[in-house]
Amino acid sequence: METTLSLIVRPTEIDVNGHVNNAKYLEYLEWGREEWYEAANLHYDTLQRLGVQTVTVNININYRKECFQGDNLTVITRPKSVGRTSFVLEQYIVNEAGELCTDALITSVAMDIETRKGCPVPDPLRRLFE
Amino acid sequence: METTLSLIVRPTEIDVNGHVNNAKYLEYLEWGREEWYEAANLHYDTLQRLGVQTVTVNININYRKECFQGDNLTVITRPKSVGRTSFVLEQYIVNEAGELCTDALITSVAMDIETRKGCPVPDPLRRLFE
Amino acid sequence: METTLSLIVRPTEIDVNGHVNNAKYLEYLEWGREEWYEAANLHYDTLQRLGVQTVTVNININYRKECFQGDNLTVITRPKSVGRTSFVLEQYIVNEAGELCTDALITSVAMDIETRKGCPVPDPLRRLFE
Amino acid sequence: METTLSLIVRPTEIDVNGHVNNAKYLEYLEWGREEWYEAANLHYDTLQRLGVQTVTVNININYRKECFQGDNLTVITRPKSVGRTSFVLEQYIVNEAGELCTDALITSVAMDIETRKGCPVPDPLRRLFE
Repeated sequence: METTLSLIVRPTEIDVNGHVNNAKYLEYLEWGREEWYEAANLHYDTLQRLGVQTVTVNININYRKECFQGDNLTVITRPKSVGRTSFVLEQYIVNEAGELCTDALITSVAMDIETRKGCPVPDPLRRLFE
Repeated sequence: METTLSLIVRPTEIDVNGHVNNAKYLEYLEWGREEWYEAANLHYDTLQRLGVQTVTVNININYRKECFQGDNLTVITRPKSVGRTSFVLEQYIVNEAGELCTDALITSVAMDIETRKGCPVPDPLRRLFE
Repeated sequence: METTLSLIVRPTEIDVNGHVNNAKYLEYLEWGREEWYEAANLHYDTLQRLGVQTVTVNININYRKECFQGDNLTVITRPKSVGRTSFVLEQYIVNEAGELCTDALITSVAMDIETRKGCPVPDPLRRLFE
Repeated sequence: METTLSLIVRPTEIDVNGHVNNAKYLEYLEWGREEWYEAANLHYDTLQRLGVQTVTVNININYRKECFQGDNLTVITRPKSVGRTSFVLEQYIVNEAGELCTDALITSVAMDIETRKGCPVPDPLRRLFE
């Protein structure tokens, strides 16, 4: 399952260097993951009912091309791999010219909301990686 | 050379989950690197005069512990390794209890401001890695 | 001349109380004004060529209704009044149900970019208020 | 009762024009009000126990002087006036040279957390205005 989210770079999202700041991309990626979880019907509340919360433990992001005010960007999100208690999403940000601006791997772990310890990735989430 | 920056987590810096959002840490790290460059007398303008700009190309960040409003955090920045045209800074965020909240490797490349191509890391910057 | 800008409230734009934070609305309004200046062909560069910069000197904003993640908001921007060296824009944020969430008056002055002093509102801008 | 909060303008807090963006000041003011409520022992939880929540309904802010990266700013917060169900705080941001950068009036109403309707300003809060 792959989702895409379109967004336009807004004036307050660029920094003193006139381009999107490296922290802002992480927000764009989070918006993209939100879209992905929603498309999967695995929203925060749904996971909560399964007794599980997902926690981001690592982000590895490459900055490849600057983005500017008014740019029409697409955030692509898709599953990459799943382990017993963790999973990795792959994300890309592409500009209107089709150029890759950013790519990132987002590693999350499943956490039991009672014990606050790692737990197996719940099946409905695991299935998306097959 | 190692620098430390102290900061307090402010109310508008926490997200709907009641903790510092993963994108915000990247801002804290950027504040820490600014401190480092300043302590090294290698401010933006100084590098500019050497004909060089530094560009962040990769951030690899581990999220280890949540941070909350009012937390007194320390951002530690130090050199890790240097290649011909690139260099890596190592950064940590530690809370008041001395617990590691985040650690990250920041890879940057030196760019010739005329040709906009990669160029050797300038000596005053390279020396900090020895 | 009136412009409208549509936007969706993104996950990183809500605060610990689960709604859009009062500072964030000012960013939404700024996005809306950018749209207005662009529609008027009075972009930063154009004003610059007329030797003028506009500076926001007062914002008076009423918060009327909370906005939440996923809300589809419309930012409406229109001219309200113009004086010799200053002008007022009127802005509204309305949600999908047509409810007024925020309204604001934004007062700006025209500044001569050479002398850095107030100057008459340039004609192409003044005309929009007639 | 008056409180002051010191802060340093950080690199990610300035915008493409090289100064603090007008939305960011509202965050600074919120940090200042947080300080004020804490000094008054009227934290969110305390008001909650009194069955009351405070809601910001209007912000009227004057932008008087630009602030820049590295500026050491002071946010001053003090009570201005109180009505039956609403109250006004007065806030100032001053730079190291003692120049006034921003001043604002923040109007809030007391809301009964059960009925979600306006209610009398609770006495411990009202007393601060006398």
